[in-house]
Amino acid sequence: MDVKQILQKVSDGALTVEQASAMLRDLPYEDLGFAKLDHHRGLRSGFEEVVFCQSKQTAHLVEIFCRFFEKGINIMGTRASAEQFEAVAAVVKSAQFDPLAGIITVMQRPVDPIGLVAVCTGGTADYQVAEEAACTATFFGSRVERYYDVGVSGIHRLLDKLPQIRQASAVVAVAGMEGALPGVLAGLLERPVIAVPTSVGYGSNFGGLSALLTMLNSCAEGIGVVNIDNGFGAGYLATQINRLACGQ
Amino acid sequence: MDVKQILQKVSDGALTVEQASAMLRDLPYEDLGFAKLDHHRGLRSGFEEVVFCQSKQTAHLVEIFCRFFEKGINIMGTRASAEQFEAVAAVVKSAQFDPLAGIITVMQRPVDPIGLVAVCTGGTADYQVAEEAACTATFFGSRVERYYDVGVSGIHRLLDKLPQIRQASAVVAVAGMEGALPGVLAGLLERPVIAVPTSVGYGSNFGGLSALLTMLNSCAEGIGVVNIDNGFGAGYLATQINRLACGQ
Amino acid sequence: MDVKQILQKVSDGALTVEQASAMLRDLPYEDLGFAKLDHHRGLRSGFEEVVFCQSKQTAHLVEIFCRFFEKGINIMGTRASAEQFEAVAAVVKSAQFDPLAGIITVMQRPVDPIGLVAVCTGGTADYQVAEEAACTATFFGSRVERYYDVGVSGIHRLLDKLPQIRQASAVVAVAGMEGALPGVLAGLLERPVIAVPTSVGYGSNFGGLSALLTMLNSCAEGIGVVNIDNGFGAGYLATQINRLACGQ
Amino acid sequence: MDVKQILQKVSDGALTVEQASAMLRDLPYEDLGFAKLDHHRGLRSGFEEVVFCQSKQTAHLVEIFCRFFEKGINIMGTRASAEQFEAVAAVVKSAQFDPLAGIITVMQRPVDPIGLVAVCTGGTADYQVAEEAACTATFFGSRVERYYDVGVSGIHRLLDKLPQIRQASAVVAVAGMEGALPGVLAGLLERPVIAVPTSVGYGSNFGGLSALLTMLNSCAEGIGVVNIDNGFGAGYLATQINRLACGQ
Amino acid sequence: MDVKQILQKVSDGALTVEQASAMLRDLPYEDLGFAKLDHHRGLRSGFEEVVFCQSKQTAHLVEIFCRFFEKGINIMGTRASAEQFEAVAAVVKSAQFDPLAGIITVMQRPVDPIGLVAVCTGGTADYQVAEEAACTATFFGSRVERYYDVGVSGIHRLLDKLPQIRQASAVVAVAGMEGALPGVLAGLLERPVIAVPTSVGYGSNFGGLSALLTMLNSCAEGIGVVNIDNGFGAGYLATQINRLACGQ
Amino acid sequence: MDVKQILQKVSDGALTVEQASAMLRDLPYEDLGFAKLDHHRGLRSGFEEVVFCQSKQTAHLVEIFCRFFEKGINIMGTRASAEQFEAVAAVVKSAQFDPLAGIITVMQRPVDPIGLVAVCTGGTADYQVAEEAACTATFFGSRVERYYDVGVSGIHRLLDKLPQIRQASAVVAVAGMEGALPGVLAGLLERPVIAVPTSVGYGSNFGGLSALLTMLNSCAEGIGVVNIDNGFGAGYLATQINRLACGQ
Amino acid sequence: MDVKQILQKVSDGALTVEQASAMLRDLPYEDLGFAKLDHHRGLRSGFEEVVFCQSKQTAHLVEIFCRFFEKGINIMGTRASAEQFEAVAAVVKSAQFDPLAGIITVMQRPVDPIGLVAVCTGGTADYQVAEEAACTATFFGSRVERYYDVGVSGIHRLLDKLPQIRQASAVVAVAGMEGALPGVLAGLLERPVIAVPTSVGYGSNFGGLSALLTMLNSCAEGIGVVNIDNGFGAGYLATQINRLACGQ
Amino acid sequence: MDVKQILQKVSDGALTVEQASAMLRDLPYEDLGFAKLDHHRGLRSGFEEVVFCQSKQTAHLVEIFCRFFEKGINIMGTRASAEQFEAVAAVVKSAQFDPLAGIITVMQRPVDPIGLVAVCTGGTADYQVAEEAACTATFFGSRVERYYDVGVSGIHRLLDKLPQIRQASAVVAVAGMEGALPGVLAGLLERPVIAVPTSVGYGSNFGGLSALLTMLNSCAEGIGVVNIDNGFGAGYLATQINRLACGQ
Repeated sequence: MDVKQILQKVSDGALTVEQASAMLRDLPYEDLGFAKLDHHRGLRSGFEEVVFCQSKQTAHLVEIFCRFFEKGINIMGTRASAEQFEAVAAVVKSAQFDPLAGIITVMQRPVDPIGLVAVCTGGTADYQVAEEAACTATFFGSRVERYYDVGVSGIHRLLDKLPQIRQASAVVAVAGMEGALPGVLAGLLERPVIAVPTSVGYGSNFGGLSALLTMLNSCAEGIGVVNIDNGFGAGYLATQINRLACGQ
Repeated sequence: MDVKQILQKVSDGALTVEQASAMLRDLPYEDLGFAKLDHHRGLRSGFEEVVFCQSKQTAHLVEIFCRFFEKGINIMGTRASAEQFEAVAAVVKSAQFDPLAGIITVMQRPVDPIGLVAVCTGGTADYQVAEEAACTATFFGSRVERYYDVGVSGIHRLLDKLPQIRQASAVVAVAGMEGALPGVLAGLLERPVIAVPTSVGYGSNFGGLSALLTMLNSCAEGIGVVNIDNGFGAGYLATQINRLACGQ
Repeated sequence: MDVKQILQKVSDGALTVEQASAMLRDLPYEDLGFAKLDHHRGLRSGFEEVVFCQSKQTAHLVEIFCRFFEKGINIMGTRASAEQFEAVAAVVKSAQFDPLAGIITVMQRPVDPIGLVAVCTGGTADYQVAEEAACTATFFGSRVERYYDVGVSGIHRLLDKLPQIRQASAVVAVAGMEGALPGVLAGLLERPVIAVPTSVGYGSNFGGLSALLTMLNSCAEGIGVVNIDNGFGAGYLATQINRLACGQ
Repeated sequence: MDVKQILQKVSDGALTVEQASAMLRDLPYEDLGFAKLDHHRGLRSGFEEVVFCQSKQTAHLVEIFCRFFEKGINIMGTRASAEQFEAVAAVVKSAQFDPLAGIITVMQRPVDPIGLVAVCTGGTADYQVAEEAACTATFFGSRVERYYDVGVSGIHRLLDKLPQIRQASAVVAVAGMEGALPGVLAGLLERPVIAVPTSVGYGSNFGGLSALLTMLNSCAEGIGVVNIDNGFGAGYLATQINRLACGQ
Repeated sequence: MDVKQILQKVSDGALTVEQASAMLRDLPYEDLGFAKLDHHRGLRSGFEEVVFCQSKQTAHLVEIFCRFFEKGINIMGTRASAEQFEAVAAVVKSAQFDPLAGIITVMQRPVDPIGLVAVCTGGTADYQVAEEAACTATFFGSRVERYYDVGVSGIHRLLDKLPQIRQASAVVAVAGMEGALPGVLAGLLERPVIAVPTSVGYGSNFGGLSALLTMLNSCAEGIGVVNIDNGFGAGYLATQINRLACGQ
Repeated sequence: MDVKQILQKVSDGALTVEQASAMLRDLPYEDLGFAKLDHHRGLRSGFEEVVFCQSKQTAHLVEIFCRFFEKGINIMGTRASAEQFEAVAAVVKSAQFDPLAGIITVMQRPVDPIGLVAVCTGGTADYQVAEEAACTATFFGSRVERYYDVGVSGIHRLLDKLPQIRQASAVVAVAGMEGALPGVLAGLLERPVIAVPTSVGYGSNFGGLSALLTMLNSCAEGIGVVNIDNGFGAGYLATQINRLACGQ
Repeated sequence: MDVKQILQKVSDGALTVEQASAMLRDLPYEDLGFAKLDHHRGLRSGFEEVVFCQSKQTAHLVEIFCRFFEKGINIMGTRASAEQFEAVAAVVKSAQFDPLAGIITVMQRPVDPIGLVAVCTGGTADYQVAEEAACTATFFGSRVERYYDVGVSGIHRLLDKLPQIRQASAVVAVAGMEGALPGVLAGLLERPVIAVPTSVGYGSNFGGLSALLTMLNSCAEGIGVVNIDNGFGAGYLATQINRLACGQ
Repeated sequence: MDVKQILQKVSDGALTVEQASAMLRDLPYEDLGFAKLDHHRGLRSGFEEVVFCQSKQTAHLVEIFCRFFEKGINIMGTRASAEQFEAVAAVVKSAQFDPLAGIITVMQRPVDPIGLVAVCTGGTADYQVAEEAACTATFFGSRVERYYDVGVSGIHRLLDKLPQIRQASAVVAVAGMEGALPGVLAGLLERPVIAVPTSVGYGSNFGGLSALLTMLNSCAEGIGVVNIDNGFGAGYLATQINRLACGQ
């Protein structure tokens, strides 16, 4: 029952002022969170759900997967360990696991991918973060193509792939160490580049700080940076842009 | 087979132009700079040009404006001082200046804005950075609406404006101090939020570091962060997204 | 006109559903921010107002003072320069200025101070920050006593004053350099200590970082830390506690 | 024997000047620490005791618990491991353990809680730190209500609970990642907010630094910050304020 | 004039092969990857290969070694664990392992060392990083001499060895803690010093930061710094210089 | 009147218990700070006084010098500007100024220097900090010898001077940039080395951080570090050690 | 035999030029490092030896202990693990181990302690670092007294012990967390205070950084700071000062 | 005359013991610093001299130039201001000044340049640092070619110039902001790249830190990094390498 319906009932005498006042008292916050709730409802009650598995207790995690599974929706778990997967799979039989990417998926409904998101990495060591981005984008409905290990030492491969990459609505560029890939890509493309610094490296990379600062300071335009190792956030943002490009 | 050999075979008739063209196409990198050059050409030789004025010598700056002015294109100068503007305006009479935003503009061709980019700020002190973002987006052809001073202390105003902000393809959120605005916006919207930390503040904001870290660590999805005070980069990225949303 | 009044008018037929709906549309956020707005209203429309002068343009600042002055309320400007004061005083004749503290005050209504807030400093160099705290607490209605220069090199003076300091509901402890004062005070008192690190010092104090970290890592319980040089925030928080202690 | 008694004996000739001088020589420091000792005595010799278990050797820890247990007082151990608890419980049979919170309690005397402290968290991952704060406040005699997982992604739940939270004398706000919760709360409340940054997060949160800086730089007034993960300190400070509000 | 047009003119006889070749030469980038590819080809397809073993999965690592082994080239694996070596040696029988240095080598072709690279360390704890540098330089064909443990506490040994060290084309100086060795060496030599900070130390060395800053700030001229613990990079750079000195 | 005198008067009946109690009430803190006060008294009321001039207001500074001058004691002002000196000298005619060192001195009593403190610097740019140390040590009664510009680029000069430097009880080693001098000295001497990092340098010296970390991480034993640019603290500590060595 | 003696023997024909040349060959560096070598000789060839055990390989460590044991000297091993001790004790039967302090000692000759070094700690958690300092000072011949757990929460105990602490030539002050102890001590004493920050703490202590900065920024004079957790360095420096005070 | 010659003369009676002792007394340090002194002598007494002008007092600077001028040698002053130049030129008439580069030169002897050093910059803003490198290399006898403004936004120009750049023995790569140029160059060249981070940029470049970290963490081999803005050091190191390549 929305505001107008309440008012109509007051006007009709079906609700007293006191009754309506009590009902309206809770409405503001419901209204406030409306889009948010809708959005969440959209995500949660029919299509898809993402669970951040890391440091969650196994019992809690299994319960979460079960509750979502019963709703018949698709579920993705990120940063999952093999132990966590085994506990989930013991209950949710259709669960699948990619151990390198640390991702559990339970697909109960088909997804029809749209548009194109390209996920590129500077090196092979950035695999897990890139997969988190790619799986997230896929999970939320983007068509995804992967261009891994196309950093400085393999720049000819990157250049070879440029025509395909240029088809993407948004490009996720994952890189550790010096983190130069997003800047190079942004200089060659006219599409938004989502830059993901990774903690891959040693010494003065200080847990990803070097790659993060490189990306923030890039001279090339058209780069948005997410947190170190935040493949999920990059895949999500790329999907938002991809949906816009597809008219959604 | 190197370039000369290919050419010799063309000269000899042993290769058709198409065959040779296809072969040369993969002599890597020829394509590479092409689009880039095209892109630059697109930006530089007919429509628009942006000049970063800060720390440029006045004589150089005037010369740059003159050269672009002669081409009949639109020019925007960011981070300009009043002195720099006066020197430019002495030669380029149609130059305009917004002293608060530090922006010089020379508009020689009409721009027909498309879509919508919303530029929001947490406080009044973020004005210059926000204007740099707004003017950049406008300059590159986006329709822009400003929602300034809608941070924590004025959140009811932000909520009042949510329906309009939700119309935008991309939202630029500018904030200093604690930098919470982008996270709050991303939690309320389904569109990409470009977060711009500013160096506004004192003490442990450490030149914008606090706002930067806040934005990178936001729990809300759908945020891409640019460098501290980088209004230009945010306006550019927002325009790229806005163009995609408009089917460009 | 509040929610019940609107509903009553709907019930009475004095408002149509559409009219009431439009009016209620803005109410949620008003309600949401009710206490906040009330609070602000309390601050802004009858009693008192604080203006952060630093980096505000003089014309804007004068206009702000004038608008508040016309309401007949008390006004305090923090981090004000002598130039700013002169511009304000040219229009608001009753404005007063404390150049060491950088504080402009315009007192139009008497304030009856309650409770007690003690403001202590480690050294004489912390004067400006301490005055900002003391004036803020005074301005919002707390009785304030100052115990300056009672740091390590004058600890006997601090101990002499302990009986008086113990009367306070809350103690603001301002210190730069090593920042040990709040920890020492918290170890000797049973009341909340608001710790204010200052940027006073040189070398490895790194703009107040050393004092900040000292205060956050204090072994003594009962310390809440505010931003470096944030005397205003400390005075405000101390007043909140003081009001609670006075049953407000 | 206090100063007056010593002096009386000198006056009576029961003590020589030399004897009295030697006795007085140690008195100053006893006096100095008086309130402190009283305070400690208040805490230690009849009511309650808190033990920081982390990195304490098991044998030492058991001995500490035994000594306090014999005094018939209440004991709380924070940051305890399951192994530590088992060793303690083998001797102190009435010891209880909350493994998620890492807290051992031995309650030998009833506590009659007063006032109200609200403990809020941004996410479920902040549970342990929040429980440390809540248990500490409870242990020292505050009535405590918990509002967990009311961060950005659940802000409607926070708003729903605002009326109850507003009843509290002091609010402990626990948050990791971006750490925006305390600022949002302080903007909505008129009571002191004790902000506790947590080390929850990854990448550029740098062990809690991002949340810490956010809280220190908050634009909202009325926030005191404690060390990263310092739930104990927050619970203690909140209790001090709560006692003041209850007229203690 | 684009590629096809040039080719057409060649086909038409309007351009000679030489003319067209010269024109294509400036269609940028064709040369670019060539040398690079050649260079890589030089490294990869006949002589030598270096593998960064750390955090590579064992199966991948074994496969990489096998593929290079089949080409009959020399292979060096850095930062290898004993487990990784055992897996490699099970398949590549001629593999050798230095457990202190963490280096796997497979030598299938003789290398005739040229020139001289000196590798010096400040202490014994820098052994692994120094060996990585020394083995890398050896692997790429430099003659290498080691001068270990010649830091501050053994400076007379360093001075004894100066005449020999002066024979080297380039000197790799490895040091942790305060990292003073490279500066001392550069002050005594006229040859390039490659400085390698190590993470050896504790407390305020902050993972090698102290040594890194020392080396970057050295008053002595003639120092180039590489990343913390980057023995490989230092050995490579020293070899480049050594080759130049040998006329290669 | 000290404790014994008070007691004697009580014993004599010249003071009542109440009178004596009141008098003793203030004594504890006087006793507490006894050595400190004595020390200060020693410093302040007959011999010598040090004033930190930087950021002190000129009027205050002049007043301080006057008050001390009237006592007939020696006065040293550190970090003084030429303007400050002129204001002081206008009143205190015998004031002297060393503009390079930024030190004002007023010598009213002869000082008979004892022992030996050596003050060494790495470069000429460390002059001011070194002079602050040397003048402080001289002022408090140490004999001082200066060995300036004996850093890495002039190590033969340092070695030439070693026999003399070895006569000192304590050595103050002042260095910026890489800050290696104290470690080198400590490796060659058996006496305490007081290390003073300076902010001299640029780039990654980060305001003296590089020199500070070098000194803290030195492999050589026998080094105590003071704050960046804290020549005063070094001169004071060296004098304490020198006095001990002279049997004081 | 010094240079003149060698030369005299050459002049006398008692040494050939070759013999003298060989002897002199080592002299320059012996002269250069004379005190150092003497010092080392003093340490190494008859009296005492300190071994930094951490991260040394067990076989190496045992060999080092054996070699020193055979010389009949006293040996101290710092930062030793129980495993390391067991391996050493299997061969050197007289080895003793303090597991809390992580120190192995082999005493073969009596030491007659001189003077006095006081070692104080802020809390019980600083035990290991303090013992490293105390054992080092004892090992090198200082009489040592320990005053542990006399930090902020036990300041009355510190004050009680002041008369004894004042007897010391040098005071080692060990503290983690906020690190205020050295500053408090230096304010109460006239002797050098060697400040040792420890990494004890959590959150924003950042591995000891907070205590380090506190100590460097102390307002009190007479403090020399060593590296975080560097108990050995503090004990060594304190002994140097103590020896000076004893006329050595 | 070396040690053996001295000894022979003693043996021959041509030198007394005292004479030989005096001669040997200076030998150790002369030997120690031999190359260094020679090197310095080479630099100082006949050919060339470099003066770091920044923060030198004008009187001192003029005196230094005069003393070198009288020797008839070439002199270069770096980081000089226009004021400093005018003062120098008033006395040394042949002094020249490049105000953009901040370099004073006095050329009294012809230099015959050898080999080739290439100096590249990422942007025009790096001009001063690059000129410092180029002038230093020229001054010490290297032939220098400049390739400025060939960073990311002008990469086609870089690629155009690659054939020429490849002729250089060493390449100095100067870049601010993200600092990607050295890594790109090292990936395309087989010669040593001297990387110079500059402080050019804003926001999270933190005074050059971002460029510095990028360069240290580069995935490409063959890079040695110097301090932020240290053009002089880069030019010097490049010249050392260039001399080696020329057989010097």
